[in-house]
Amino acid sequence: MNVVVINTGTELLLGSVLNTHLNFIARAIFPLGLRVARQLTVPDGIAIQETLAVSLQEADLVFVTGGLGPTTDDITREATAELLGLSLRRDPGVTASITERLRTRGFPMTDRILRQADVPEGAQVLQNANGTAPGLYIAATDSGTKPRPHVFLLPGPPRELEPMFEESVMAILRRIVPFAGAVDCRTFKITGVGESIVEAAVGQKLLDLGHIELGYCARPGEVDVRLLGPSSRLDEAEEVIRGAFPKSIYTATDESLEEVVVHLLIERKESVATAESCTGGYLAHRLTNVPGASGVFPAGYVTYANEAKTFSLNVDADLIETHGAVSRQVALEMAEGARRSAVVTHALATTGVAGPSGGSARKPLGTVFIALASAGAETVVQRFRFQADRESFKRLATQAALEMLRQRLIAA
Amino acid sequence: MNVVVINTGTELLLGSVLNTHLNFIARAIFPLGLRVARQLTVPDGIAIQETLAVSLQEADLVFVTGGLGPTTDDITREATAELLGLSLRRDPGVTASITERLRTRGFPMTDRILRQADVPEGAQVLQNANGTAPGLYIAATDSGTKPRPHVFLLPGPPRELEPMFEESVMAILRRIVPFAGAVDCRTFKITGVGESIVEAAVGQKLLDLGHIELGYCARPGEVDVRLLGPSSRLDEAEEVIRGAFPKSIYTATDESLEEVVVHLLIERKESVATAESCTGGYLAHRLTNVPGASGVFPAGYVTYANEAKTFSLNVDADLIETHGAVSRQVALEMAEGARRSAVVTHALATTGVAGPSGGSARKPLGTVFIALASAGAETVVQRFRFQADRESFKRLATQAALEMLRQRLIAA
Repeated sequence: MNVVVINTGTELLLGSVLNTHLNFIARAIFPLGLRVARQLTVPDGIAIQETLAVSLQEADLVFVTGGLGPTTDDITREATAELLGLSLRRDPGVTASITERLRTRGFPMTDRILRQADVPEGAQVLQNANGTAPGLYIAATDSGTKPRPHVFLLPGPPRELEPMFEESVMAILRRIVPFAGAVDCRTFKITGVGESIVEAAVGQKLLDLGHIELGYCARPGEVDVRLLGPSSRLDEAEEVIRGAFPKSIYTATDESLEEVVVHLLIERKESVATAESCTGGYLAHRLTNVPGASGVFPAGYVTYANEAKTFSLNVDADLIETHGAVSRQVALEMAEGARRSAVVTHALATTGVAGPSGGSARKPLGTVFIALASAGAETVVQRFRFQADRESFKRLATQAALEMLRQRLIAA
Repeated sequence: MNVVVINTGTELLLGSVLNTHLNFIARAIFPLGLRVARQLTVPDGIAIQETLAVSLQEADLVFVTGGLGPTTDDITREATAELLGLSLRRDPGVTASITERLRTRGFPMTDRILRQADVPEGAQVLQNANGTAPGLYIAATDSGTKPRPHVFLLPGPPRELEPMFEESVMAILRRIVPFAGAVDCRTFKITGVGESIVEAAVGQKLLDLGHIELGYCARPGEVDVRLLGPSSRLDEAEEVIRGAFPKSIYTATDESLEEVVVHLLIERKESVATAESCTGGYLAHRLTNVPGASGVFPAGYVTYANEAKTFSLNVDADLIETHGAVSRQVALEMAEGARRSAVVTHALATTGVAGPSGGSARKPLGTVFIALASAGAETVVQRFRFQADRESFKRLATQAALEMLRQRLIAA
């Protein structure tokens, strides 16, 4: 089925409000085998008419959001009825519920408000538990002079649309969407390897399998490889991709790297502490975003100043003097100091030059040393260079740190 | 000028990634008097061709995002060149910068990667400080067989697009957009006060001034009030809003609360330390996102476990036993412990129940105590309750903590 989403709303095009509808609807319909082919945002008012006219020709299923309210530029209902050649009748049930809603709020009734009770003939009313304007569903038809796709008119505010979608729209979709279980989706998250290297290693091989749609999504420090296709074909594709990256795929689910690490620690009854200089608390923040982190992460240190490295982690001040705060030796002592002090299985330490200033010829901007100290193992230190803005630098450095720990956890 | 935004990316239509480009671009171009007339999202690959063909006919200015990368489904550059009848040539400058970028990362060069150095004839290259693929600007022309609008091809990742937009695109727009200076835009960021309270206090008064367009944008822990209109009218509006919220407006620029706090500390030559339980390092992370933070933030502690509160901050173990870790008394000792240990002017401490589990009748989920200890002042502790998901809770709690410190800094 060809699915089109049309969002109406001048506030979306002005940037006053972030459009979250596409994201919400796409996720909601995916399990039914439906994907959005195209999405458009148009201003309030007359623009909906032209856009909707085109979409009614092309699509099998159209979701329109917004423009159902009481103001003069809310014309989605009227424009749709006109394009489909359906007359509007005032629905007594909706009239009663709007009247009651206003009464309890002490607002006066007006003609404009009552327009929201107008329903195109044959349309199904979708209750709005969180607002005045109901949603509307107009079923597809092939007969007559005006064949049409399935059309859903939905309210603009997410707090109204989202519950309505889950409670009413999904039930209708389950009825009208031919079972499309043949298409499956698998996403593999890979860290420590660049997007182009991932594609060079597996891209052609995956496409050669046939009947597979392949997508890449690169974020700082990770690449998602997304495969869509029949399950049997995806099994073969999974073998290819796991064969190429036996250790770098950290999940084939929606988990983040920090979730994977925290869950591995919980499973193994181990713990971790952090000693952060250049990542400034972001590593601790990522770990503590995971519910259950409290059981495996007793303590973290943010030692931005040299003195803090000494008084919190017992790093030798002479060592800092000799090698500099951004050095292999200091990273190592930070990790070992944190591990001793917090009495944990593992400790991760970061020290580097985040920028925008600092850096030298030997330790240019973006240089970072990451150390991992673990019980019963030699402490390892890796040197990286991440040339990026400050926040991306922190993202990349914490990603590398978490991955060092994950590799140790899966190797042991 | 008729402005069209086209976002390419299957991940957007699948709901894997939220589309923030429309929002960003709309806000950025507004001060130039430009508004987006229409926005479309299309999947990776061939769909861009048809959509772009239509937009090139209708628009005066087209922004295309995504599809400039090295993989086979990245075809925005080639599709645009073909539609505009422009040949591609490999740009030596871009080739050199891609080569250098790969070299510093130790990645091998491939033909696919080098495609990113292909530039349509006459296009201007927009440097990408945060990624491989440069942006491209193709100026409008009325002459010849192929008249065309202004076209910007921009990278998909927001961390690449946004700096490029601010650094390169805006300068070009200022040159090509007919001056529309009649409209000014001012945004006031308010924290510690809810959106509906802000609206009740100033909404009608601002609208009564006339010729002003008023917008609110609420994010966790803050509300933006955005005013559009002639400068003289905005001066009056500014008086209204500053009169209503003399202390809660933390900026009338684009600064974040953490930037305001770090800059106040720098100005006053003071310093801060953090002692975090429930916010798990996020407070330190926010502070260290601000360039220059190293001068005012020597150290932070993440004391998730009770023992860590004792060994890192010297909180009395009996006190924790008696009052619980989530208590006024423990927050106070954490802040004072951090201040003593890090030898700073101020220390902020957080202890609370972030959820999803935990909480009790007396200290329900979302309860948090925030303490501020300062040199020469009595330590204050405030109790809050933020009922939200784990990450929003951390956002709200750190927002409240930063605001406590800001209030102290502006009062002193």
